[in-house]
Amino acid sequence: MANHQTNSTSAPPVEPGADLHLELSGPGLRIGLANALRDAVRTGRLGPGTRLPASRTLAADLGVSRNTVTDAYAELVAEGWLTAQQGSGTRVADQAQAHTAEASAPRTKAAQHRPAYGLKPGSPDLANFPRAQWLTAARRALTAAPNEAFGYGDALGQEQLRSALADYLARARGVYAHPERIIVCSGFHHGLALMAQALRSRQVRAVAVEAYGLDLYRDLLTSAGLDTPPVRVDEFGALTSDLPLLREAGAVLLTPAHQYPIGVALHPDRRVAAVDWARASGGLILEDDYDGEFRYDRQPVGALQGLDPDRVVYFGSVSKSLAPGLRLGWMVLPEELVPQVVAAKGHGDYMSSALDQMTLAEFITSGSYDRHVRSMRQRYRRRRDQLVTALAHSAPAVRVTGMAAGLQAVVELPRGTEGEVVQSAARRGLEVSGLSEFFHPGAERDRRGPEQDALVVNFAASSDSAWTGALETLRSVMP
Amino acid sequence: MANHQTNSTSAPPVEPGADLHLELSGPGLRIGLANALRDAVRTGRLGPGTRLPASRTLAADLGVSRNTVTDAYAELVAEGWLTAQQGSGTRVADQAQAHTAEASAPRTKAAQHRPAYGLKPGSPDLANFPRAQWLTAARRALTAAPNEAFGYGDALGQEQLRSALADYLARARGVYAHPERIIVCSGFHHGLALMAQALRSRQVRAVAVEAYGLDLYRDLLTSAGLDTPPVRVDEFGALTSDLPLLREAGAVLLTPAHQYPIGVALHPDRRVAAVDWARASGGLILEDDYDGEFRYDRQPVGALQGLDPDRVVYFGSVSKSLAPGLRLGWMVLPEELVPQVVAAKGHGDYMSSALDQMTLAEFITSGSYDRHVRSMRQRYRRRRDQLVTALAHSAPAVRVTGMAAGLQAVVELPRGTEGEVVQSAARRGLEVSGLSEFFHPGAERDRRGPEQDALVVNFAASSDSAWTGALETLRSVMP
Repeated sequence: MANHQTNSTSAPPVEPGADLHLELSGPGLRIGLANALRDAVRTGRLGPGTRLPASRTLAADLGVSRNTVTDAYAELVAEGWLTAQQGSGTRVADQAQAHTAEASAPRTKAAQHRPAYGLKPGSPDLANFPRAQWLTAARRALTAAPNEAFGYGDALGQEQLRSALADYLARARGVYAHPERIIVCSGFHHGLALMAQALRSRQVRAVAVEAYGLDLYRDLLTSAGLDTPPVRVDEFGALTSDLPLLREAGAVLLTPAHQYPIGVALHPDRRVAAVDWARASGGLILEDDYDGEFRYDRQPVGALQGLDPDRVVYFGSVSKSLAPGLRLGWMVLPEELVPQVVAAKGHGDYMSSALDQMTLAEFITSGSYDRHVRSMRQRYRRRRDQLVTALAHSAPAVRVTGMAAGLQAVVELPRGTEGEVVQSAARRGLEVSGLSEFFHPGAERDRRGPEQDALVVNFAASSDSAWTGALETLRSVMP
Repeated sequence: MANHQTNSTSAPPVEPGADLHLELSGPGLRIGLANALRDAVRTGRLGPGTRLPASRTLAADLGVSRNTVTDAYAELVAEGWLTAQQGSGTRVADQAQAHTAEASAPRTKAAQHRPAYGLKPGSPDLANFPRAQWLTAARRALTAAPNEAFGYGDALGQEQLRSALADYLARARGVYAHPERIIVCSGFHHGLALMAQALRSRQVRAVAVEAYGLDLYRDLLTSAGLDTPPVRVDEFGALTSDLPLLREAGAVLLTPAHQYPIGVALHPDRRVAAVDWARASGGLILEDDYDGEFRYDRQPVGALQGLDPDRVVYFGSVSKSLAPGLRLGWMVLPEELVPQVVAAKGHGDYMSSALDQMTLAEFITSGSYDRHVRSMRQRYRRRRDQLVTALAHSAPAVRVTGMAAGLQAVVELPRGTEGEVVQSAARRGLEVSGLSEFFHPGAERDRRGPEQDALVVNFAASSDSAWTGALETLRSVMP
C-alpha cells in the first residue's frame, strides 16, 4: 500500500502570483480575495489613496457574491490596509506601506487576521455544541442501524429522521408535517437552491423577497434565473398586502417568525394576507424558519406553514440550533412539489451524511434536542439582556429593537452614523454589520420602515471570555 | 447542559382528528390545546367565522387555567388561524380553510419490491462498515476539535481532512497532492457536477466518455449542457489515441485503474497518449479512481494524475472503501481550477458534514483506514475467487474476465444470450446487470471490444448468508 512515496506533500503552499485570478486560489474565495488585495497593496500595485471598485462592481467582475467582497474589504479595513468612509468609498490607507516589511514573511493559517471580537450575525454559539450528547446519540444510532442505512440512501432523506422531524415540527413549531412531505437537505441554502430549480421547472420567473435580507440568498435566486422583486418591511414585518402588485412573482420568501435581520414577527393580518395572495395567485410562500425555537419573552409563534400546508414550503435546519457544520436541514413541502424537488436533487447524490442523519434522529427522539434548545435559549436570553443593559447604561441615544428572540439584535443609531460606527468598531478590532448591508439594492427606502442607521449585533456566538470585551468595545463606539 | 429534564419528550406525537380532550395529553396543556384548535380548524370541524367559547368558559369545561386558554387563543390569533375583535370575541378566521391533503393514502416503503439476491454493481459490503472504529475516531475527533470546526467551514473542506488526504493519496495512489489543491465533495457525482459547471465556465462544450460506463454520469454531463462523445474501449482500456479525432472535446472522463465496468487497466501507452492529448489540446483528463485501492493480484497501479497534475483532475471517495452513506469524496485539482470549482460550489453551502470530515481525518491518520481497506481487500479477493471457482465448475461456457480487482467482475456469455440470462435470473429473484446496460448509446459496437454478451456481477455487497444462494442461483441460469 505504501509504495508510491512522493515528497509532493511537503511542497510549499501556493504562492499568490501577479494576477488577481491566480491569487484567488487561496483556501476560500474571501481569504483568497483578501490575500490578493493585501499583496496588491504590499507590492504597490494599489497605491495609498487609490479608490477600490464598489463591492457590487468587483463582485460582478469576479463572479463572486457581494458578501465575499464586503467581508474581504471589512477585514482589510480592520487590519488597517484600507479605509472606508461614508461617501468616499473604500480606499487604500495612507499607512498601508508601513505593513510592507512585516508582511513579507510567508503567511500561515495561524498568522491570518482575526478580529478581536466578531459580532457579525450568522453563527450560533459553537462553544456549546453538545459534543458528549451527540456522541452518545451517534453510538446508539450506529449500533442500532441496519446495514442498508450505510448505503446510497433515499432521495428524501433517511426515514427515521423524517419521522422524528415530523413529530418535532408539529409539536414545537405547529408545522403540518408528514414524513413523505419532508426532504432532508444540507441547510437552507441547499433547500433554496433545490426550490429555485423546482420553481424554474414550474415556469416561475420571480421570487419576491423581503427588502431586508441576506444578499447571499438573493444572489442564489438571481443566478438560478429568478428575479427578486423586494417587498417592503416595517415594524409589523413584510408588507404582504403588496404582493398582488408584484404580478410576475410566483413565490415569496419570508421570515415570518423573526424577520431577518430586522427582528420583528409578521403581524397576523400580514400572515393572512400572504396566504390569501398565495391562494388567489397560485403562488408559493417560502418560509425560512431559521431560528423559530429561540423566543425569550413568550412561546414562539407557530409556523405560517400550518395555515396552508399546500401553499407554504417550510424550511428549517440545525444551523442555528446545533451547529452549521452538521450541514443538515429540511423542507416540508406541499405534496405536489415533492417529486419536483426530488428531481432537482438529482438521481445519484443526496448529499446528506447517513450517519449524521441517523444521529440527529436519535438526538431528537431521545429528547436531547429539546434539552439543548432549552439550555441555549436561557443562555441566549441572558446574552441579549446583557446587551440591552450595557447599551441602556452607556448609550442612551441608541435603542435595541426587535423581539426578544433569535441570535442577533438590531441596535438603532442616530441617522447618518452607521458607517462611521461600523468603521470605528473595525478600527478597535470589533467586527459588526451595519443594517444597510442587508438592504435590497432594488428597494426604495421605506419611510414607514425602521431606522435606516443601525447595527445588527450577534450576541450569541462570542465566547464568554470575548463577550465582556466585545460589549465594552461596542459601548465605546456608540455615538 | 442536560439539566432541564421533562417527560414531555417521551409523550406520543399528537394524533390529529381525535377528541379535543385526548389531544390535551400532549407535551403541554397550552401546546396541546393550540394543536387541538389548529386541527379542528384544519379539518373543518370549526368552520370559518365560528365563534369560539369565551376563555373562561372553555377553561372551566376543560378543567385548565384560564391563562392556558387565553395563551392558546393568542397564539392562534398571532398565527392567523383565529381573529379576536373587541366586542365580538374570538372567531375562526375566514381564510383558515380545511386541509384534506392528509387523507390521501400514505406511501409506504415496506411495499417496495426487494429481490432475494442483489448482484447489481454499485455498492460495497455494507455489513462490514467498521462501526466501532468509526465511533472511536468520531469521539477522538469531536473531543479534540476547536469550536470553530462546528461552524460553516471552508469552501475547500476541512483543513485536517485535506492534509490527511494529501498524505494518504500520495502514499497509496501516487497522487501529486497538496491540501490547497484538494476540494472535499460529497462523492464522485457531486465532484463531477461541480467540474461540469467549471468546464462550462471555461467554454468547454463536450466531455469525451468511455464507450462503457454509467449512464448516470453521461446524463449528468448532458444536463449540464455538455456533449459526451464516446471513446472506444478494448482489452487495454480506452483508445485514448482516438482523442485527437474528437475535436470538440475539452475533457475526457476515464477510469484508468479499473475500467468501469469492463474491468481492465489502461495500458501504459494509452496513459501516455491521454496525457499527450491533454497537453497538445489544452484539454483535461477527469480520472475517476472509484476503487483504486482494491487490487488483488498485485500492487495497485498508481493514479494517472501523477503523470501530469496540471492536466488531470483526480476524483476519489469513500463510497467503495467505507460506505456511500458517508457522502464524502474529494477532487485533486490543477491549481488554476481551484477557484473555478470553489465558485461552482457556491458561496454559502459546502455540503459536507464537518463532523464526518474530522472523523474521516482521524480515521485516516490513526491508520484505521489502511487497516479497513486491507481487511476488505482480503474479503473481496475471497469472494471473487469463489465466483470464479463456482462458474468454472458448473458453467465452462462462460468466462470471468477483467483484472482481479474492485467489487465487480464481468462474466462473458455466449453471443446472443445476455438478455435471456438476465431475465431468467430475475425470475429466480436474482438481480444482475447485463453489460449492454453500460454501453454508450452513441457508440458503434467495436469489433475489437470485449464480448458484447456479458453480466456485470457485484461479488462484494451480498451478506455471507445471501452469497451462497446468490452464487447457486447464478450458476443455475448460466447457459
